[in-house]
Amino acid sequence: MASWGSVLITGCSRGIGLQLVKQLSESSSRPADIIATARNPAGSAALLELSRTRPGVHVITLDVCSEQSISSALEEVQSIVGNQGLNCLINNAAVGSSRSLQSVTRETMMKTFEVNTVAPLFVTKAFLPLLQTAAARSAVMGVHRAAVINISSILGSISNCGDSTTFRNYAYGTSKAALNMVSRCLAADLGPVGILCVSLHPGWVKTDMGGAHADLTVEESVSGILSTLSSFTEQDHGGFKDYRGQTLPW
Amino acid sequence: MASWGSVLITGCSRGIGLQLVKQLSESSSRPADIIATARNPAGSAALLELSRTRPGVHVITLDVCSEQSISSALEEVQSIVGNQGLNCLINNAAVGSSRSLQSVTRETMMKTFEVNTVAPLFVTKAFLPLLQTAAARSAVMGVHRAAVINISSILGSISNCGDSTTFRNYAYGTSKAALNMVSRCLAADLGPVGILCVSLHPGWVKTDMGGAHADLTVEESVSGILSTLSSFTEQDHGGFKDYRGQTLPW
Repeated sequence: MASWGSVLITGCSRGIGLQLVKQLSESSSRPADIIATARNPAGSAALLELSRTRPGVHVITLDVCSEQSISSALEEVQSIVGNQGLNCLINNAAVGSSRSLQSVTRETMMKTFEVNTVAPLFVTKAFLPLLQTAAARSAVMGVHRAAVINISSILGSISNCGDSTTFRNYAYGTSKAALNMVSRCLAADLGPVGILCVSLHPGWVKTDMGGAHADLTVEESVSGILSTLSSFTEQDHGGFKDYRGQTLPW
Repeated sequence: MASWGSVLITGCSRGIGLQLVKQLSESSSRPADIIATARNPAGSAALLELSRTRPGVHVITLDVCSEQSISSALEEVQSIVGNQGLNCLINNAAVGSSRSLQSVTRETMMKTFEVNTVAPLFVTKAFLPLLQTAAARSAVMGVHRAAVINISSILGSISNCGDSTTFRNYAYGTSKAALNMVSRCLAADLGPVGILCVSLHPGWVKTDMGGAHADLTVEESVSGILSTLSSFTEQDHGGFKDYRGQTLPW
């Protein structure tokens, strides 16, 4: 695995985001700078512990729904990565809850779309200059050069929807289908400047969001994600992959 | 073509909605009641003219983003259709404008999602009792029994996105991809009670939204849509079709 300079992950206070920081910082091929962001880092003792004990782990406040918060975070990240730019942005922050036809509300639909679909687009727009700087420094597409990884979900697979009640969630499912469209649009726009864009399903994971009955431990999911991320090439650009690297249907 | 009792169309002040009312009311196999709704019917002389000159065309005020407006409209529609229920709901009202990565704003993303994705879901929820009444009165799935037709777009096709600059519009494309997910979720929920649900691409049409360089006149699009609608069977349930009845990729 080639060496990479920096990765920024949103939503690191718990769940998959926190575990990505933990396992990345333990990896022999770890990025020099692991920028772990959260809306309220002070609320996550586990994240603060990682930043104290693991060299190169930087904890930054980032509320993905606030342009002001994004601006402040961008300044801090710029000062960390300098003229190397940012190699990999993982848009992981998300909200989710089960919403049936009976229980779904307009407010839940709008808030879920704002956090899960709109925010990843505008975080990407803000960090684009740093990604472009990194992209210009090498030629082989991948997360070690420049990449936007949107953490999506099989629940955002339109063709899969309806297979079972598990695959039907109005607020979460529409937000992730829409995020997949954002990934495709970004792939078309950013491919020419060498930035890889992929939608990634982490599996159904035992987190606060996934619940206790999920298939995978967060360790299993994140091991798969990190292995899959490092294998991404130009062939995967614009794709919808799961944590094992399998292609999923739109 | 079997006879049908009633159809309700949103967004009838102009464009495809207005033309649907016009051509449906001229058809030999026309529904008895054509309920044409618009946010501000008084602003459309053409729509008011149709309601004066065509028997069975009812014009009702309906702002698809307002639950209060939906409630009022529901009462009026109930009094028109009575115990026959509503046979076909066409969610046509939408907003759209070209939004590139550079020009797209959070506000445009949110407003487009609210009108194009959330509103069709909540209009459908509100009219569901009337659709269920109609569905219970016969057994063969189709628009003459009970149906929800969501007017979507090929711009909402995630797999097609990126083929050309035409197929990339952050705000509109994500809203229509998300609407396709709504259609799939509704298909799973409403199929068991006999309500057909389909996402329909009307073609690229010379309307205020489509612009002057579009492929089709609004007459051509609506002729295709009406012919296609009347041919829908259980086989089309949960599908993504164009105005000619061709299946489109998600």
